[in-house]
Amino acid sequence: MRKVIFGGAISLDNFIARKDGAVDWLLWSKEVNQIMKDMWKNIDTIVMGRKTYEVAQKMGGGVEQPGVKTYVFSRTIKKRNSKKLTFIADDAAAFVRQLREEEGKDILVMGGGILAQALFEADLVDELGFNIQPILLGSGIPLFYEMSRQIDLELKEGRQLSKGCVYVTYKVKHV
Amino acid sequence: MRKVIFGGAISLDNFIARKDGAVDWLLWSKEVNQIMKDMWKNIDTIVMGRKTYEVAQKMGGGVEQPGVKTYVFSRTIKKRNSKKLTFIADDAAAFVRQLREEEGKDILVMGGGILAQALFEADLVDELGFNIQPILLGSGIPLFYEMSRQIDLELKEGRQLSKGCVYVTYKVKHV
Repeated sequence: MRKVIFGGAISLDNFIARKDGAVDWLLWSKEVNQIMKDMWKNIDTIVMGRKTYEVAQKMGGGVEQPGVKTYVFSRTIKKRNSKKLTFIADDAAAFVRQLREEEGKDILVMGGGILAQALFEADLVDELGFNIQPILLGSGIPLFYEMSRQIDLELKEGRQLSKGCVYVTYKVKHV
Repeated sequence: MRKVIFGGAISLDNFIARKDGAVDWLLWSKEVNQIMKDMWKNIDTIVMGRKTYEVAQKMGGGVEQPGVKTYVFSRTIKKRNSKKLTFIADDAAAFVRQLREEEGKDILVMGGGILAQALFEADLVDELGFNIQPILLGSGIPLFYEMSRQIDLELKEGRQLSKGCVYVTYKVKHV
């Protein structure tokens, strides 16, 4: 079965962006580019919520990667589907559960924590990967929302990157 | 000048305890004991808020360490001071600013993020140290509260401990 992966760059206080969606504070390096390149090799599907889609649009796209099919969950967006981009009005967890059972490469959960929360609650997230940036943003778009249960993790890797970043990856211990 | 240090064991979703204060989910190891032993060598003062004090009392003490003076900030607790334990009704930031200028070893900010938030806002925190546990608690007592500004950090150390924990320490870049 393909894996559902949740991750990205975060501040030490667990924000993925400033309140307006800005990610000007992210530190980049060759190592980070390599990590992302390696990750994209194993991804052929992106899932995201409406808010993340809207922020991505505002920031100038980025939701259409070569060789990658993107699903945006929204009951309100009235846009036509394209070859690479499909809008889904159905329940996100049910849709991802089905996607996960199909043949294919891994599925990346992009953006904020609302979609991730629904997928965590349904025990559909398999791996986490975060690049912890050396900053407390103070406020912003949160990575995690409150959940009704705890999720036990197994550390795969934890290491320093350049510029004071720390890269951590985990497997989810399924219920 | 002595340093003000904020830290402790946290879940990956930045909680320091379950909602009732329980820390049954913390993983211990010889390495962690050694890190704590080394840290305590450089500490002679603890500051904490009322809530942390009350949780510590409920859990069976722990606020009175040998050779360490503890200050609890509260406008409501009516208890007598002892040799090791002093209740402070004054503004926490002003009090810690003065403490920090006195001679002595380092000052540890214990417990939840309400006191830390006030000290961060006043630019009085010098170092952070966290033992990130491989768990998403889902809910609990938060480590960080919203702040009016960002705080830039410099990574000192980021390394894997046993049992899937990751230990990170930072210096605060003062304004």
